[in-house]
Amino acid sequence: MTAAPESAAGIVLTRVDRLAGISAYPWTLTRRVFSPQQAEAEALVLGWMAEAGLSARRDPAGNLVGRIEGAVPGGPAVVVGGHVDTREDAGRYDGTLGVLIGIAAVERLIRHGPPPRHAVEVVAFVADAAGRFGPRQLGSRAVVGRLAPDALDWDDAYGVTLRRALEAHGLDPARLASARRASDAILAYLEVAAEAGPVLERSGAPVGIVPALSESTMLRVTLTGAAVDAAANPMPGRRDALAGAAECVLAAERVGLAREGVTVTVMRLDVAPVPTFVVAGSATLGVRVDSADDGARRAAVAELAAALEAVAARRWLGITVERSVDPDATRCDPGLVRLFEEAVAAAGHRAVRLAQGVTTDASHMALLGPIGLALIRCRGGVGWGAAGTVDPADVAVGLDVLAGVVGALAGGAPSPREPRDGHLSPPWPAG
Amino acid sequence: MTAAPESAAGIVLTRVDRLAGISAYPWTLTRRVFSPQQAEAEALVLGWMAEAGLSARRDPAGNLVGRIEGAVPGGPAVVVGGHVDTREDAGRYDGTLGVLIGIAAVERLIRHGPPPRHAVEVVAFVADAAGRFGPRQLGSRAVVGRLAPDALDWDDAYGVTLRRALEAHGLDPARLASARRASDAILAYLEVAAEAGPVLERSGAPVGIVPALSESTMLRVTLTGAAVDAAANPMPGRRDALAGAAECVLAAERVGLAREGVTVTVMRLDVAPVPTFVVAGSATLGVRVDSADDGARRAAVAELAAALEAVAARRWLGITVERSVDPDATRCDPGLVRLFEEAVAAAGHRAVRLAQGVTTDASHMALLGPIGLALIRCRGGVGWGAAGTVDPADVAVGLDVLAGVVGALAGGAPSPREPRDGHLSPPWPAG
Repeated sequence: MTAAPESAAGIVLTRVDRLAGISAYPWTLTRRVFSPQQAEAEALVLGWMAEAGLSARRDPAGNLVGRIEGAVPGGPAVVVGGHVDTREDAGRYDGTLGVLIGIAAVERLIRHGPPPRHAVEVVAFVADAAGRFGPRQLGSRAVVGRLAPDALDWDDAYGVTLRRALEAHGLDPARLASARRASDAILAYLEVAAEAGPVLERSGAPVGIVPALSESTMLRVTLTGAAVDAAANPMPGRRDALAGAAECVLAAERVGLAREGVTVTVMRLDVAPVPTFVVAGSATLGVRVDSADDGARRAAVAELAAALEAVAARRWLGITVERSVDPDATRCDPGLVRLFEEAVAAAGHRAVRLAQGVTTDASHMALLGPIGLALIRCRGGVGWGAAGTVDPADVAVGLDVLAGVVGALAGGAPSPREPRDGHLSPPWPAG
Repeated sequence: MTAAPESAAGIVLTRVDRLAGISAYPWTLTRRVFSPQQAEAEALVLGWMAEAGLSARRDPAGNLVGRIEGAVPGGPAVVVGGHVDTREDAGRYDGTLGVLIGIAAVERLIRHGPPPRHAVEVVAFVADAAGRFGPRQLGSRAVVGRLAPDALDWDDAYGVTLRRALEAHGLDPARLASARRASDAILAYLEVAAEAGPVLERSGAPVGIVPALSESTMLRVTLTGAAVDAAANPMPGRRDALAGAAECVLAAERVGLAREGVTVTVMRLDVAPVPTFVVAGSATLGVRVDSADDGARRAAVAELAAALEAVAARRWLGITVERSVDPDATRCDPGLVRLFEEAVAAAGHRAVRLAQGVTTDASHMALLGPIGLALIRCRGGVGWGAAGTVDPADVAVGLDVLAGVVGALAGGAPSPREPRDGHLSPPWPAG
């Protein structure tokens, strides 16, 4: 994993490895929100921010913020985001790669570029993935003002409240709400991360651009049959809930295969326990339908629900289909997508658009301003857990691309977002 | 459920209901081996045996034995079996129906028949189904000498040994082995039970005859794929263990549907837990293949294993297929099958042969002599758990059939099994 330390990409990967060594367990990477391991990792990241020439601090929510000022101190900033705490059994690149490439990109601007016209920030958000307290993305929710009023009273699995966890982490709970930032403080929000899928590897491209964050519709499907004695009940006439569930899983797969840009995944199948001599009487499926195209996703959900009900009817099974989540997808800014594509081309590579991007802090930050996302190819095609590796050469391309986009936004753009026709407008031609 | 108490069948069903009211829980029928509830039920059954004119006792294993002597006291007996203790959440007819019909049949012989030439016994075996201590069928295993030498040291889920449980139930552990009986003590073993399936109801017959006890081959199938991010991994190229498992479930169903007299049941499907954003990485199936025809069962298992391996190969999944149990089926005695069929015809009904019969104490008793089984139709087609009811008219037919067979064996047959060419032979023409 370790690359030549002399290159900027090599330094990024050495730091990724260094952070990956800080874990609650030696056999897996787990660095929980507000944990001692997280404090240790944060101290390193704040140090690297300072080394790069950024003024580094923790905001009232615990987000790490490294900033260089633009021409007007305190003015709106181009923000590059990521996270440093992790979920249980996380991948080493997840979140940290974006923060560390962000620091390297800003360091390059400071050392080699003209003084930036606009401020630039690198932010490591708290709890992107880990749901220790209430919903995920605690840090970006706090920044955009999406935290519930009773958030301080949320507790974790051990009864520790967010209030106490903040205090233990050296933060003042009374100031949590002041982590909120105004939309005119953010010029653009950018994120670079390792791809969690195989698309870039298959298409032979080191960096891909995400036009929209995909969202998911979650379904819970329950099938009810008859739990009867296996040996004494001939196959014809059985009402086997598991056989019905199996047909539903394959129907879900067919619906997903038939639609470009849509995935349909049955990630759970629970059979109500029966003695080993009994046919399964009921089964519950957990299904998610993902797409960055809301219309395509909802059409797939409708087609799937009809297919599942047909399976149940044909097999004389009871069925309920509950839909628990169904948000709209967040579109990235078309101007930023173009800017990223130009930077990829300038680095000598083909600009690939990715049909699906994972949901991150970016979906919250989109409330404050335009967002743009790029993903870096992951060798082995798997970005979940410990598997998959990122190539130093690809990190170098990602760094060039991010430095190019940040440089264009912070220095080269005609002006920060100024009121035009009563609306804020971005510092690049409308997409 | 309660029938007119004046008829013998009505008395049987009234007693079934009385026993069903003796349970560890009010909402389900659970009467565990050597439990206080079991002691209460046993006292009732011993009393009903005595009322019927049988000498009633508990043998050293705790089996209840009611006996009338034949012409030669202590001579070999025709045995009618069943059980009175139950599994968790049992059906009210399971085991008790056979014991109570047996008592009623012998009572009829005592009151209305000639003095029997051979002894007749009604036996309620201990632990037919419940596996509180080691394997099931504790009572019949003890009778045929199939108990392990260390059986007294077996303990239950609470650490109570069989030795202590026997003592607490008023039995002498040191005498357990003496429950064993010689094969020349048993002329024939007969069982009547409620059908646990819908075959008799579908064929419109009150009583069916079992030519062989079905046995099962148990398989554990593990599929291994890749647990990857759901949204970021397009459908083509996934190695989804659950989708593969679903195909396996349907392949199992097809193999079962294609073979008369064979059932293939997937009663378990466990997906290794993954976060809700991840494709299932591995899945384990529990499969049982049941048939009374060993050749057909093993052919089905081979066909199934090949089908599962083809599914795995097509989907690039790892697969292991482990076979844990694969005993030979036990055939009922052809002469007893004919005797039962004649008794059904004499009662004015069509004799239906059932392709599959459940495994019971009869499979052990087959070591000591010929066995014969008849099943009584269960309305609602389900014999498992609390569902299903047995009709008083069908119980009356079952009683007539059993009384006819027992009468023929005990009194009408030419002789008890006497050595002929060095072998014991049954008291009816060879089948």
